[in-house]
Amino acid sequence: MSTVERQLEDIHSTVEQEVPGDITITEVRYEGPELVIYTRDPKRFARDGDLVRRLASKLRKRITVRPDPGSLAPAEKARAEVMRVIPEEAGVTDLDFHVDTGEVVIEAAKPGMVIGRHGSTLREITQETGWTPEVVRTPPIESSTVKNVRNFLKQERNERRDILERIGRQIHREKMSDDQWVRITTLGCCREVGRAAFILSTPETRILIDCGDKPGSDDVPYLQVPEALGSGANSLDAVVLTHAHLDHSALVPLLFKYGYDGPIYTTEPSRDLMGLLTLDYLDVAAKEGRTPPYESEMVREAIKHTIPLEYGDVTDIAPDVKLTFHNAGHILGSAISHFHIGDGLHNVAFSGDIHYKDTRLFNGAVNNFPRVETLVLESTYGGRNDYQTDQEDSERKLKQVITETIENDGKVLIPAFAVGRSQEIMLVLEEAMRSGDIPEVPVHLDGMIWEATAIHTTYPEYLRDDLRERIFHEDVNPFLAEQFNHIDAGEDERQEVADGDPCIVLSTSGMMEGGPVLSWLERIGSDPDSTIVFVGYQAAGTLGSRIQNGRRDVPLRGPDGRSNSLTLKMGIETVDGFSGHADRQGLENFVRTMNPRPEKVLCVHGDERSTQDLSSALYHEFNMRTFAPKNLETFRFV
Amino acid sequence: MSTVERQLEDIHSTVEQEVPGDITITEVRYEGPELVIYTRDPKRFARDGDLVRRLASKLRKRITVRPDPGSLAPAEKARAEVMRVIPEEAGVTDLDFHVDTGEVVIEAAKPGMVIGRHGSTLREITQETGWTPEVVRTPPIESSTVKNVRNFLKQERNERRDILERIGRQIHREKMSDDQWVRITTLGCCREVGRAAFILSTPETRILIDCGDKPGSDDVPYLQVPEALGSGANSLDAVVLTHAHLDHSALVPLLFKYGYDGPIYTTEPSRDLMGLLTLDYLDVAAKEGRTPPYESEMVREAIKHTIPLEYGDVTDIAPDVKLTFHNAGHILGSAISHFHIGDGLHNVAFSGDIHYKDTRLFNGAVNNFPRVETLVLESTYGGRNDYQTDQEDSERKLKQVITETIENDGKVLIPAFAVGRSQEIMLVLEEAMRSGDIPEVPVHLDGMIWEATAIHTTYPEYLRDDLRERIFHEDVNPFLAEQFNHIDAGEDERQEVADGDPCIVLSTSGMMEGGPVLSWLERIGSDPDSTIVFVGYQAAGTLGSRIQNGRRDVPLRGPDGRSNSLTLKMGIETVDGFSGHADRQGLENFVRTMNPRPEKVLCVHGDERSTQDLSSALYHEFNMRTFAPKNLETFRFV
Repeated sequence: MSTVERQLEDIHSTVEQEVPGDITITEVRYEGPELVIYTRDPKRFARDGDLVRRLASKLRKRITVRPDPGSLAPAEKARAEVMRVIPEEAGVTDLDFHVDTGEVVIEAAKPGMVIGRHGSTLREITQETGWTPEVVRTPPIESSTVKNVRNFLKQERNERRDILERIGRQIHREKMSDDQWVRITTLGCCREVGRAAFILSTPETRILIDCGDKPGSDDVPYLQVPEALGSGANSLDAVVLTHAHLDHSALVPLLFKYGYDGPIYTTEPSRDLMGLLTLDYLDVAAKEGRTPPYESEMVREAIKHTIPLEYGDVTDIAPDVKLTFHNAGHILGSAISHFHIGDGLHNVAFSGDIHYKDTRLFNGAVNNFPRVETLVLESTYGGRNDYQTDQEDSERKLKQVITETIENDGKVLIPAFAVGRSQEIMLVLEEAMRSGDIPEVPVHLDGMIWEATAIHTTYPEYLRDDLRERIFHEDVNPFLAEQFNHIDAGEDERQEVADGDPCIVLSTSGMMEGGPVLSWLERIGSDPDSTIVFVGYQAAGTLGSRIQNGRRDVPLRGPDGRSNSLTLKMGIETVDGFSGHADRQGLENFVRTMNPRPEKVLCVHGDERSTQDLSSALYHEFNMRTFAPKNLETFRFV
Repeated sequence: MSTVERQLEDIHSTVEQEVPGDITITEVRYEGPELVIYTRDPKRFARDGDLVRRLASKLRKRITVRPDPGSLAPAEKARAEVMRVIPEEAGVTDLDFHVDTGEVVIEAAKPGMVIGRHGSTLREITQETGWTPEVVRTPPIESSTVKNVRNFLKQERNERRDILERIGRQIHREKMSDDQWVRITTLGCCREVGRAAFILSTPETRILIDCGDKPGSDDVPYLQVPEALGSGANSLDAVVLTHAHLDHSALVPLLFKYGYDGPIYTTEPSRDLMGLLTLDYLDVAAKEGRTPPYESEMVREAIKHTIPLEYGDVTDIAPDVKLTFHNAGHILGSAISHFHIGDGLHNVAFSGDIHYKDTRLFNGAVNNFPRVETLVLESTYGGRNDYQTDQEDSERKLKQVITETIENDGKVLIPAFAVGRSQEIMLVLEEAMRSGDIPEVPVHLDGMIWEATAIHTTYPEYLRDDLRERIFHEDVNPFLAEQFNHIDAGEDERQEVADGDPCIVLSTSGMMEGGPVLSWLERIGSDPDSTIVFVGYQAAGTLGSRIQNGRRDVPLRGPDGRSNSLTLKMGIETVDGFSGHADRQGLENFVRTMNPRPEKVLCVHGDERSTQDLSSALYHEFNMRTFAPKNLETFRFV
């Protein structure tokens, strides 16, 4: 009998001792990090609201209780019961019964009303039907990504259950080694921006954190070195994704092509955004005639293997590692990933990308942890002069540029990342128009911006407190303002807009490395009354960076596939302060107020100068050990 | 056709163009790092003493010319010819003809006389017989190790030839990667003394430098991590052994158990000493009832796969790595290993263990290199107070202790490493007795000391200039002085000595971790007139260290296998200054006068305090980047 079997038997006995005598436990098993308890008496289990919490605390595991299939009311009968229990105002849009797990997935416009106070409505559903309810939000703006992901996971439910069981056994395996050490290996994004990838390893466990591409370059993380995938992709125990931007996520699906079949831990919005962005990444590659590094099937594998975690959930992901996500303030679902290793042996936090102050979209990054000795900190704006304008001043400047351009009868083109910056700018524009700071003109959203916005409205829990409140009330959801037009009819619609009245165009890609922004450039770039406004980071080598630096001859590929050159006559402006990244001051403040203050900081995800400047400043200011690692190095802690 | 085949065809054509028209080339092939040219006209080849040098320079390879088997005189006829050509004074002791390679191995007391001026006698042998002579020295003291190694290699000649051909093809394979980086991974001996092991890696090549055990501990190098042997022992291109002490060599044979079948580069004396010491290591393990980590068969594999290099030979060991050994002054054959990587990309020197000043046995360590950017430096005595007495003062103190003990009618017991320190002390004692500084008493050599001394006399080229000269003239070979007695009749002989007159005993093991020194301790430890004198490094945790620190209750295992306790009554003295390691001053001087001065220094092979002290001192004194790595870290250069 394997050690996991023995463990489960012990847990089974403990559970039977702990629950009232009239509750029958038929099985306990692992599904991913969770312990699932099957019972013939789900209704009795649901009676005692505190029972699951007590069991979880006793067993020190995350627990899900499921009805034994034999104890379930038939789906059609249950459907009526469920609908009766849930208040009508909850706005249920779908009910989906899964006989194999005894779960009913309830999609509703107002999930809170399905849950009820302290989960009372959920418990009532179980008591009435035996089914275990799971609640998801009906996207206020329909998102095809969210719909596709949910449908796909529904289809693959059986396979996913097997995957989760395998992963669960892996997580709860017996520790093998008496050795104690913690190491971080840098596979990318050191002394550069892009291709984020780290390995966190102990004698027991190897975890890959992020696996991105590098904008403006073909460079990929050093996956082939022995300490990465040299002994096979399945030598990894887990992949953790801090957020969905391609420089962190693009090559995650590639791992499955290499034979990985373990879990990806990330937040739910990051999972969906990863799906959206990586599929687009494949699309762009195909359009540009490059062979994509993997096929869309691998994106589906990645989604199927994703175990979504919420901020603050402390989750066992290996026998000696607990993972907790904390809001990073950078984009939807972005997470500082905190690893607690061993029994208090060491704590490492990977910042991913962070924004320390509140923005319109997000609360600022969390920097409060139970313990943390080592911090791996992004340094995008870590250089000694990388101070950004206050957002208030930036907004003032942006509004001024827009007003002037529109009064000149011109158009404003804003290249923006579909995910994050676009929604921030949308919020600025919506408020500015509402308050009369800028003229009311149409705001055209091109590329994936509309879809990305839809995903934002699906997960308002991840947005800034006050924004979340507004979205909950559909009548004041700023993303639904009528100025916003989704460009969904291709080149004809673009030409119409270009030929028309003053307006604002928000278009991908954010660094002008392809996408519809090039089409806009072609159409309005030679209009001296129009203006292009950069509001995001432009990586060295990208077209965005070159235009920003004054280049006015722009190579374009015509519709016939031949290369043309366009001479820009439009105004070129940069308004910083909208970045999703903390600036130098923000990074220092993040560390200064961090609780507890880490002993060691690795400054990564910034060019050579930025990482070295930041490393040196943190050392001198806070007297901590700091490093500006190179790629392919390994640091040992403990 | 493989790229190596094509390469060899090109070389074949070039050779044919370069040699006179009357010389037929039948084959060119690789054997290890060398290019072997087979010719039907070895005699004509031998005519032009400069031809091989010209070819080597043209092809930028090390070249050996061999007769095509068809062109050889029959062995018996050749034997007479060879003996006629070599002067009788050369003292030939063996001739061994190898038909497969056309080589005749000539063992002679005076190899120089077999070689002749600028190799003239060797050329004459080839001209007369067609055979290619190879010369080895007849050990002045018979060494069973040297004899066994030579016989074994003779037996395995065919298999060895296949191994060398395979290695040769591996070395001369085409470069695969466009990437450029150089990394060092620490697998042991960081912030500790013992278990030396490093990986030097490039995108092309992975080299293991040393693979030792840790005295006084069961710790072994971290071979199982992915970046070591995680993707198989054959993911290594080469193993380089800096010297034969067990803390550098003990686990080299283990690699062959793990499936390694590539080359070991080391000096010829290091190869023989490694054979001696690792076989003894297995013996000791067996005697102590431990399961040895490998069998003696693996030691033979290691020897079979060894490619001996001489100091100063620049040798291709991979498509992008050239290795050169330089005298390290530490023990016989010890080598600073210099790696030239890429075409001028980077140069790394691993000091191994070094002694910077001349000792009686060896010239001081070389610190002159064509180029070197990174130095990996031992730090055994790197602590801020690790200054050692001058050898002159040490010798005075040693002589004083000996004289007093002998005048007291006592015996002097000196625990010493068989290899290195023993021979140094022998030279001190021999001179002291010759000059009347100490009384003439017998010096008993126990354990492997006699055998190790025999190996020293086999390779006088590796000894200090003036000592080498004395050994060449057998009448003044200090190791043959009549005071020296080989304890070769076991416990009876020991008891006789212990019961007898004053004398000196040099015995292994050096740190009293087993071996005959314990038997001596038992016999004379309770004699208050006798003295034990420590002359070498005592690692923490060893019995030697404990006695040195004042412990007088010594646990001993009696002949019946039961544990006894002995109370020491003998005097306990420490005379430092005989260490094979540079002291703090020596290490600083080594770096100060190093040419060129390296940019970065990794301080290793010392306890935590020593490595950090040395690292900090070198940083402040020489303004270089210095590190005190931990085990399991990876540093990237370039």
